[in-house]
Amino acid sequence: VPTSRLEAFSDGVFAIAVTILVLAFAIPKGGASLSHELLHQWPSYIAYAVSFLTIGIMWVNHHDVMTQIGHADRTFLFLTIGLLMCVAFVPYPTAIVAEFVRGGDRQTAALFYGITLTTTAIFFNALWRYAAWNNRLIAEDADPSVVAGITRSFRPGVPMYAGSTLAALVSPVASLALFAAIALFYVASNSLLGRAE
Amino acid sequence: VPTSRLEAFSDGVFAIAVTILVLAFAIPKGGASLSHELLHQWPSYIAYAVSFLTIGIMWVNHHDVMTQIGHADRTFLFLTIGLLMCVAFVPYPTAIVAEFVRGGDRQTAALFYGITLTTTAIFFNALWRYAAWNNRLIAEDADPSVVAGITRSFRPGVPMYAGSTLAALVSPVASLALFAAIALFYVASNSLLGRAE
Amino acid sequence: VPTSRLEAFSDGVFAIAVTILVLAFAIPKGGASLSHELLHQWPSYIAYAVSFLTIGIMWVNHHDVMTQIGHADRTFLFLTIGLLMCVAFVPYPTAIVAEFVRGGDRQTAALFYGITLTTTAIFFNALWRYAAWNNRLIAEDADPSVVAGITRSFRPGVPMYAGSTLAALVSPVASLALFAAIALFYVASNSLLGRAE
Amino acid sequence: VPTSRLEAFSDGVFAIAVTILVLAFAIPKGGASLSHELLHQWPSYIAYAVSFLTIGIMWVNHHDVMTQIGHADRTFLFLTIGLLMCVAFVPYPTAIVAEFVRGGDRQTAALFYGITLTTTAIFFNALWRYAAWNNRLIAEDADPSVVAGITRSFRPGVPMYAGSTLAALVSPVASLALFAAIALFYVASNSLLGRAE
Repeated sequence: VPTSRLEAFSDGVFAIAVTILVLAFAIPKGGASLSHELLHQWPSYIAYAVSFLTIGIMWVNHHDVMTQIGHADRTFLFLTIGLLMCVAFVPYPTAIVAEFVRGGDRQTAALFYGITLTTTAIFFNALWRYAAWNNRLIAEDADPSVVAGITRSFRPGVPMYAGSTLAALVSPVASLALFAAIALFYVASNSLLGRAE
Repeated sequence: VPTSRLEAFSDGVFAIAVTILVLAFAIPKGGASLSHELLHQWPSYIAYAVSFLTIGIMWVNHHDVMTQIGHADRTFLFLTIGLLMCVAFVPYPTAIVAEFVRGGDRQTAALFYGITLTTTAIFFNALWRYAAWNNRLIAEDADPSVVAGITRSFRPGVPMYAGSTLAALVSPVASLALFAAIALFYVASNSLLGRAE
Repeated sequence: VPTSRLEAFSDGVFAIAVTILVLAFAIPKGGASLSHELLHQWPSYIAYAVSFLTIGIMWVNHHDVMTQIGHADRTFLFLTIGLLMCVAFVPYPTAIVAEFVRGGDRQTAALFYGITLTTTAIFFNALWRYAAWNNRLIAEDADPSVVAGITRSFRPGVPMYAGSTLAALVSPVASLALFAAIALFYVASNSLLGRAE
Repeated sequence: VPTSRLEAFSDGVFAIAVTILVLAFAIPKGGASLSHELLHQWPSYIAYAVSFLTIGIMWVNHHDVMTQIGHADRTFLFLTIGLLMCVAFVPYPTAIVAEFVRGGDRQTAALFYGITLTTTAIFFNALWRYAAWNNRLIAEDADPSVVAGITRSFRPGVPMYAGSTLAALVSPVASLALFAAIALFYVASNSLLGRAE
């Protein structure tokens, strides 16, 4: 299977990226009470959940994409590596947003987080559009309606991520809330499209 | 296989979560003697072993569950992601409990640990109950006695975890000891049920 | 395959444990020159290589063992979890020995490292002896000469590890050198036995 | 399959090494503004991308190599472990180069990075040359033109890495740029050779 190497590489990166998100949590040091500290870092829990959901959904979608791909070429390889480089990077802006949303330069933190997710979405869209254009890399036995369904489900991705990022210019917390809403929307729509069933 | 994607995602998260538990151990800095420091951090070793056992057992059980599942739907996907989010989070309360049990706010540390494991157990139970209800997602060729055996083995989970968590209000150390006992009980019962053989 | 779950669990833990060994290296901070710092931490490089080799060899051997196992029972499950708990723990004593061998309490550091590896070897030996005793868990189609070969190759393990650990009472550096020698010996003997070919 | 154990071991190490590169990024502490800090650490982003690409390409190439290998022997096992030890080590010099290129001892940092990648390339070349010499370990059904193609594609590796390392004596930044160029070259040539298709 010519694309199985790419899939194995990708699976590993997705699984590890999602699991090392927890390393962003710092152990509270003395001073304030532990219960106060643990409650006080609520943005960390939200950032953790949003990034976990977002990467998890991308993994599911990536599998859906790869099942339709018949072969890979140079550009597809480039775009996959770009996508994975973004996915593996997500734990860093997650830690930044968790650290700065409750105090400090919230706007920069939210923008940094949003730009990372938007860039990830751009690579993911470019990868699919490149593969699906005139069925360039689509497997011969692929179901055209499934291919069209994936194309349709990818359409709102970049605009939604870019919009949520720009929302940080008005309200960093609203921006994070929008990313949470997108993640929940994708879990729902993913199933509605019948692709997880 | 419609559920194999979920299983691969889950396997990766379980294996990585269990292995990064070790990152909670800090290298002792000067001052006291090294041997004193290494002995003094005994709660870290116990917390490490309990969390390792608990996640390991959940992995084994998750495989048992997935072999009975014929297909997945939206709610099942939601519950699996919730379960994995909890499992991947365990290294953090493990580090907290290791740091604070020997001094500081023991009760909060033990409660934080217990709440995490109880939430994990709730997601795991909800996932199985949702799938097994009227055989909703059970594979057609599943053995009814195996399905009933899993249901039976899941029953004591949440009450035991919740009880062990509440024990922290009386004694944080007793709470940790109860979680250790549950882990050992599950390793034993798991085999007694014949599912690991 | 009844033992495939255990193998998948084990494979993940071995691979991750070996790769997070690198996290023990700290980035030098100002003061001394970088080249001096990088050369000065030579014990870290040796500890990294020895632990990498040791875990790598155990992974290879674990696969050899599992190919001979026909089924698992409660005790085997217990022993496997104990073995993996030790393997996943190795990065911590590795970091300790790297930190303290060039200064500080070398003896305690080397003893801590040696005790961890010896405990790992004990679990590994117990696991195999339990399985091989009267062919308790050995697959029906297993080649008796291969089973006997594994038993023979396991015999020197615990004495060699225990001896190298005790050597730390005389010379911590000699102890580390002995562990390096054992690792190289196993890579060689492993192939001499024809099991990697 | 006698080489599948080695491949599984290798796959895990490659995937994890590439994903923990992100742990080199430190969360900025107060003082300067966050946006300034995030922009100021541009060398970290470049070092991250170069190491990610380099390890990713080595993974793809390693799979290509293993598909041609029919069996393994002692020396091949030694060389594979040496290769993986280098690959798993890459996150450390990556963090060093990211920290020191924008200030401090740039030359040592770039040399340390270059020596690591050159050593990795040497092990990779030695591994392939050993296996391909007189078709020593090549599978009987291997296509001679594919074997010759791999040999041809490996030839420029070590000289290019060594040259880029030595360039650090003149300009550390130029050295890093050369490693980036090599990575991009390999992604391109890899596809031109048709091995990713």
